[in-house]
Amino acid sequence: MNNLERYLPAMVWAKTYDRSALSNDLIAALIVTIMLIPQSLAYALLAGLPPEAGLYASIVPIMLYALFGTSRALAVGPVAVVSLMTAAALGDIAAQGTMGYGVAALSLAGLSGVMLLGMGLLRLGFVANFLSHPVIAGFITASGILIAVSQMKHILGVSAQGHTLPEILAELLAHLGQTNPVTVVIGGLAVGLLFWLRKGLRPALVRLGVPRGAADIAVKAGPVAVVVLTTLAVWLFKLEAADVKIVGTVPQSLPPFTLPSFDLGLLRQLLLPAALISIIGFVESVSVAQTLAAKKRQRIDPDQELIGLGAANIGAALTGGFPVTGGFSRSVVNFDAGAQTPAAGAFTAIGLAFAALALTPLIYFLPKATLAATIIVAVLSLVDFSILRRSWAYSKADFAAVFVTIALTLGFGVEIGVSAGVGLSIALHLYKSLRPHIAEVGQVPGSEHFRNVRRHQVITHPNIVTLRMDESLYFANARFLEDAIHNRVAGDGAVEHVVLLCSAINEIDLSALESLEMINERLREMGVTLHLSEVKGPVMDRLEQGHFLSELSGQVFLSQYTAVQTLTGAA
Amino acid sequence: MNNLERYLPAMVWAKTYDRSALSNDLIAALIVTIMLIPQSLAYALLAGLPPEAGLYASIVPIMLYALFGTSRALAVGPVAVVSLMTAAALGDIAAQGTMGYGVAALSLAGLSGVMLLGMGLLRLGFVANFLSHPVIAGFITASGILIAVSQMKHILGVSAQGHTLPEILAELLAHLGQTNPVTVVIGGLAVGLLFWLRKGLRPALVRLGVPRGAADIAVKAGPVAVVVLTTLAVWLFKLEAADVKIVGTVPQSLPPFTLPSFDLGLLRQLLLPAALISIIGFVESVSVAQTLAAKKRQRIDPDQELIGLGAANIGAALTGGFPVTGGFSRSVVNFDAGAQTPAAGAFTAIGLAFAALALTPLIYFLPKATLAATIIVAVLSLVDFSILRRSWAYSKADFAAVFVTIALTLGFGVEIGVSAGVGLSIALHLYKSLRPHIAEVGQVPGSEHFRNVRRHQVITHPNIVTLRMDESLYFANARFLEDAIHNRVAGDGAVEHVVLLCSAINEIDLSALESLEMINERLREMGVTLHLSEVKGPVMDRLEQGHFLSELSGQVFLSQYTAVQTLTGAA
Repeated sequence: MNNLERYLPAMVWAKTYDRSALSNDLIAALIVTIMLIPQSLAYALLAGLPPEAGLYASIVPIMLYALFGTSRALAVGPVAVVSLMTAAALGDIAAQGTMGYGVAALSLAGLSGVMLLGMGLLRLGFVANFLSHPVIAGFITASGILIAVSQMKHILGVSAQGHTLPEILAELLAHLGQTNPVTVVIGGLAVGLLFWLRKGLRPALVRLGVPRGAADIAVKAGPVAVVVLTTLAVWLFKLEAADVKIVGTVPQSLPPFTLPSFDLGLLRQLLLPAALISIIGFVESVSVAQTLAAKKRQRIDPDQELIGLGAANIGAALTGGFPVTGGFSRSVVNFDAGAQTPAAGAFTAIGLAFAALALTPLIYFLPKATLAATIIVAVLSLVDFSILRRSWAYSKADFAAVFVTIALTLGFGVEIGVSAGVGLSIALHLYKSLRPHIAEVGQVPGSEHFRNVRRHQVITHPNIVTLRMDESLYFANARFLEDAIHNRVAGDGAVEHVVLLCSAINEIDLSALESLEMINERLREMGVTLHLSEVKGPVMDRLEQGHFLSELSGQVFLSQYTAVQTLTGAA
Repeated sequence: MNNLERYLPAMVWAKTYDRSALSNDLIAALIVTIMLIPQSLAYALLAGLPPEAGLYASIVPIMLYALFGTSRALAVGPVAVVSLMTAAALGDIAAQGTMGYGVAALSLAGLSGVMLLGMGLLRLGFVANFLSHPVIAGFITASGILIAVSQMKHILGVSAQGHTLPEILAELLAHLGQTNPVTVVIGGLAVGLLFWLRKGLRPALVRLGVPRGAADIAVKAGPVAVVVLTTLAVWLFKLEAADVKIVGTVPQSLPPFTLPSFDLGLLRQLLLPAALISIIGFVESVSVAQTLAAKKRQRIDPDQELIGLGAANIGAALTGGFPVTGGFSRSVVNFDAGAQTPAAGAFTAIGLAFAALALTPLIYFLPKATLAATIIVAVLSLVDFSILRRSWAYSKADFAAVFVTIALTLGFGVEIGVSAGVGLSIALHLYKSLRPHIAEVGQVPGSEHFRNVRRHQVITHPNIVTLRMDESLYFANARFLEDAIHNRVAGDGAVEHVVLLCSAINEIDLSALESLEMINERLREMGVTLHLSEVKGPVMDRLEQGHFLSELSGQVFLSQYTAVQTLTGAA
């Protein structure tokens, strides 16, 4: 793979593109396009933007990802969680519906794109690893609840602001008296119908003898039918006169050329939200891409994914969109529909461009309650509290991270929630390493293997104490080992040798080296010899840099068995 | 030890206090008092406060520490680094010499005291472990330089503000034309004399046949002689008329009762500086206390030390002082002078109270240049760049932490410097764990021990791959192991068994467990069996909570040797 192919993965699959791939990609694109039309409009609504922004955000970004991305099936565009984060970030900066809000959305996409691109070129994909599975699961669940609740205002036909659960609930309650009954009927029917389409339609069709393939397509086209039905209902019964909120005039246009703002004050305000959106979007996208790639034994390159997503977001910023990433549901549909290459994405983009150009007059009467229903049904499938139960059963530290992520996301918004989750998981990981497990070990009879004296029947010698430190030795726990050895040896006059079994010590930093020197010195003063055993290669290389080995009162043994053989005089 | 004795360590030593301890403590107190008079005045000057604040900060705090502290020899009071941090924290809040500045100093001490006390009661002493030895060494060196340079204005007799090296140097250069020649002569002589007292006086006296004990006392009293000489010079030659800055009127008073401000806005501004002062002060104090305790095989309790230092700082806030901690030089002098119990500290406090009440008129003509000289000579002994060389030789990560700490402390001030040092050491520690060392191992001939195939001559079997993961398995590196195993096995059709040697895996969190499930599943699809060996007790306990062990395609072996014996059919 040459350098051009690495940075432009489209060069690889384009070489072998043939008629069969073309027809598979075209079919997948058709299905995804139909599904994406209502979804794109709805996510624009969620982000606080006019509906056409959702279409625009799905056209050029998809094409750019097709050129630069490494996943064969990933579909890029607006997704629920990132749209929610966009609304939260822009809420403090401008009022929804103003020019400033739209420009800030472009800037947020642009900034996020530049960050993703930069991280990709610097090969910083690894930072996403700091979002642990439990934190992601908790964050997605809490976001799903926040999104669903925030969309209730469209179902009730009232206004309600806020980015936290208490704020939104308080606003909904305060405006409950202004509920619009007709809107509630439309919204309620749409939600019910969409749920039934997801769960009930396919079995029903199959029972009626419809072939499975056709039933699948019907399920995917279902939301469009709900859109058509509710739009027709508004038009026929003139429900807009009953104050049902509708989408209204949407410009008939290809994505426009737009420029984000380069105002430094604005960009500084957007810096942290853009960073969080970039990381969350990247993690979501990479997880989807890896899951799908694994099914076909393909591989994706996380650093190149950063470049693909960066290009897509810069594209969104230049063509009237807002932050985008690889979406779970649209990618799975694309994959299931048989997409073979990213060309399917390009064809989807063409389909959506046609919709933006020709179909927008048809959605004039589309009720916003229908779009809200689309969002609610989509995000409720993300809500999964089982992670709380699973993490509780496995480890209280993981549980704490999940719980804090969910509680703070709901209570204080997405940015604080995910930052606290990541911060807490790192803090707990470090905390565990502060007071490491230190086991005194003895020889398992009939073997050369050494295990904890408290868990196994082992052979020990009164004059030899072997301690196994179960953690790398670094500045934060160096003093702990000093104390542990002191406490073990101080009151036991029989001890002549202390062997530190280093099989689990993966690193010794300078602070820890100084602690070892101190331990060696103090033991020497007590007339006790310090030995090391099973020091790993990389750690030994490091120790040889200093003068600790020349000062060590005892020896370094290749294996613990050799150590005990030598010290007992058996070898 | 009952609960009262734990929280009031004075109860323990008071029981056995006798005449010999009393006379030792009295002698030590006399020597320390003589040394502390000029030092206390000087550190008040460094903190930007009137000289009497230095005396006040040494009286009640010393007594409270004597009651609550666990170190027998620690001397608490104003110290160089904390005084510098105080000046840096207050510089943004009020102008030196105003009432507001003094009150802010009291509030900073009070806030720091409450924090230390709270940490002590919550037993949070471990957080100090996050300050690694190299970061502390770098910070102390950089602070020493900053302090010495900042005192040059008093030697030159000019004014110069600023809390970073470039700021101070620029101010000094700008005012160089206003240098007061008489002040330079006094300051220069004082610096030269003080250096000679430190290095040259003792050998000279010993050569002259003076007994060693008397020579030691002369060295410690030397700075007082410099104070007396320069004060007399100013008085006799009326040098204040030549614009030599003098200390002037100092109130003759015991420490006054003062109240810090409870203004929330001010306290919020002081929050971060107070936290940093608390941690740095605590670490400095505990290191000194531990070093001295180790020499007499005594132990100190870090959590109780927090309580002692907290009480001392609250005492400083209530009696006209500023933030205090255990100081290196005064504690060493106290220890060397034979102090046996904290009662020596109480006697020192009485001596200083006498000085505050009776001796202050005598220092009316004391030149500020002399105090600056005292500080410069004291802090230059802290400056030690050898940590750069030692850390470079041992590990580039440790070097980076030291270098960043020194560079940022000099360039951007103490608060940014130490925060960046701590942040970077934690980040580098985490970064190393992201891409852990993974060794493929084989059996050392003639033993049951397994080592890296690349470093040792070992026996391997083509159908068995054993990988030793040299790091705990947690969210940030779980995916790395997935990739490493995939890369090793994917292209090698001969592999039937993968054994993961877990001797260095000290933890498996929930994210990592999910990765192991994924690895097990993928290997199973390839027809390869996954085994674990040498799983530690605590990790095994954890694994038994989930259902991973029931899904594992292979077995869990007690030792790697048993694993290979079983899989090769030799057992």
